[in-house]
Amino acid sequence: MQTALYAGNKSINVVEHTPEAPAPGEVRLRVAYCGICGTDVHIFHGKMDARVKIPQPIGHEISGVIEAVGEGVSGFAEGDHVTVRPLAYADKEENWKREGSHIRPGVKFMGIDTPGAYQYSWNVPANTLHKLPQELPLDIAALVEPLAVACHDIRIGKVKAGEQVVVLGGGPIGMLIALVSREAGAEVLVSEINPFRLKVLGEMGIDTVNPKEADVEAVVKERTGGIGADVVFEVTGVQAGVDVMTKLPCVRGRMVVVGIFSEPPKVDLFQFFWKELQLFGARVYEAEDFDTAIALAAKGTLPLEKIVSLKVELDGLQGAFEEISRGGNLLKVLVKCS
Amino acid sequence: MQTALYAGNKSINVVEHTPEAPAPGEVRLRVAYCGICGTDVHIFHGKMDARVKIPQPIGHEISGVIEAVGEGVSGFAEGDHVTVRPLAYADKEENWKREGSHIRPGVKFMGIDTPGAYQYSWNVPANTLHKLPQELPLDIAALVEPLAVACHDIRIGKVKAGEQVVVLGGGPIGMLIALVSREAGAEVLVSEINPFRLKVLGEMGIDTVNPKEADVEAVVKERTGGIGADVVFEVTGVQAGVDVMTKLPCVRGRMVVVGIFSEPPKVDLFQFFWKELQLFGARVYEAEDFDTAIALAAKGTLPLEKIVSLKVELDGLQGAFEEISRGGNLLKVLVKCS
Repeated sequence: MQTALYAGNKSINVVEHTPEAPAPGEVRLRVAYCGICGTDVHIFHGKMDARVKIPQPIGHEISGVIEAVGEGVSGFAEGDHVTVRPLAYADKEENWKREGSHIRPGVKFMGIDTPGAYQYSWNVPANTLHKLPQELPLDIAALVEPLAVACHDIRIGKVKAGEQVVVLGGGPIGMLIALVSREAGAEVLVSEINPFRLKVLGEMGIDTVNPKEADVEAVVKERTGGIGADVVFEVTGVQAGVDVMTKLPCVRGRMVVVGIFSEPPKVDLFQFFWKELQLFGARVYEAEDFDTAIALAAKGTLPLEKIVSLKVELDGLQGAFEEISRGGNLLKVLVKCS
Repeated sequence: MQTALYAGNKSINVVEHTPEAPAPGEVRLRVAYCGICGTDVHIFHGKMDARVKIPQPIGHEISGVIEAVGEGVSGFAEGDHVTVRPLAYADKEENWKREGSHIRPGVKFMGIDTPGAYQYSWNVPANTLHKLPQELPLDIAALVEPLAVACHDIRIGKVKAGEQVVVLGGGPIGMLIALVSREAGAEVLVSEINPFRLKVLGEMGIDTVNPKEADVEAVVKERTGGIGADVVFEVTGVQAGVDVMTKLPCVRGRMVVVGIFSEPPKVDLFQFFWKELQLFGARVYEAEDFDTAIALAAKGTLPLEKIVSLKVELDGLQGAFEEISRGGNLLKVLVKCS
């Protein structure tokens, strides 16, 4: 039984590992699949060495099967299919009396701040588990975590049926936001420059615009009868995305910052004044977003399989990180861990 | 009877003017007082010549008395004390089916896009009027318009009793936001560098911090038990204000952009992600904000008289603009127009 350890300096070491009995309050999972997130690529590149304890298994987009149940755990049994909401609390969740428990100070992200899931066997607190329907394929189930991100984002953006939604950036998260918005009854346009992503979006029946070939503002004006978009999701994390973001909303339109900006970009605050725009930050998810994501995945109406570009085993993780870093035509890569 | 005309190039010409009969749907006001707004100072400096038709009377913070009622106007009579919500609609207000009627495309701001109130007599559409209690002094009543701005801002910021509010910038609008927030039951701190403004705020019993002398973030942390502010109002309109703005809110804290940014500042969007911050643009007011402002002014609990630094007549307007431009110790200057 193997564990893939991030060993620093763009290297992954796969080592033998003997599964341990779960501690009280924990379960031991056999990890079925674990997806590669942009954050994992960041870690691979050494950008988050201040948070990761090297050598450490990383990875947090998982599906798995319960192999052993620790003392004091109820509601879960051996053989249950589950996914993990990878937020670990330093103290009891109920101690936080305010909004935003999922992002309160001191919350630890499993797979970054604590060991992650690129391993055969993973012991996790039972209060991070969400049960999966047994009939949901375990590869698709590994997309529940990024799908929960998208569900959280559109909840923060308060997307409603009939609204005009624009998603800036059509990578896996942008695609999922587009799909969940469409499922909620919105009209969706995705702005993306990568031809491979544009092709996949087209196959999904999502309208797209390539900002290298067309004026996104003019396209949105045209689609919305001059009114502007109700909700804009900024998923690029770059200045060009922020520049166009404030041009697209209608009066009192909403924007959601999903991309992560290591440096503060310039933001046209005059537009905030002029149109009373609203900007919402969104980070990870809350329990209800996992519930929504699992229900959506189980419903089977989203073309989630189109987001999976490649499956590798644990010993293919190093190569997968390298291929993603080269900018290969890859959306989600799943690592088969057992 | 006189009119003060903005004649371009930092000059005001006071000329004789014969009052005209109100057109159908209009009333003729005898203007009692008209306050000087930062926007008027901008116009005086030639910054808004693209919108102002020179020569033109400007000014929009008014109190007045109805002198004549035009055909088809009901609900108003000669002798009524009124203020004006200076938004003129190109078409009927009810044609706009969406949110934000007050800022929809095509709305004209009276005193900028159309003639304003620095004159003895002003004809205005009756649908812009709000009746004032006769017992409210007409000088204080000229503060209803900026007070409505503050009421709108704290409504956009959803300020609630018991919340921690920080106002960045303690000029007249920042002061009014602070006073209305305190009236709503919030704990208020104002950040301001000008000693005169700090003194007036102190006299009003508002807590202050001078960012040249103390670390605003540390002060807010201390006041809020480490949690951060519930609502931050950015009223400085400068980069330094934006820099501190994103450091102050609690998890899911709200920020309101009140300052006007002619150039896009850098905004720390990482903090939006990390704490799920929310940023709301606010522009002018809606009818209900005038209703709230009039009720507040009539209640008499706000120390509004402390915001009035100087009263001049129409022929003192040029000098008042020059004194404000020199950065004199002035808060609100009222122009006695009749």
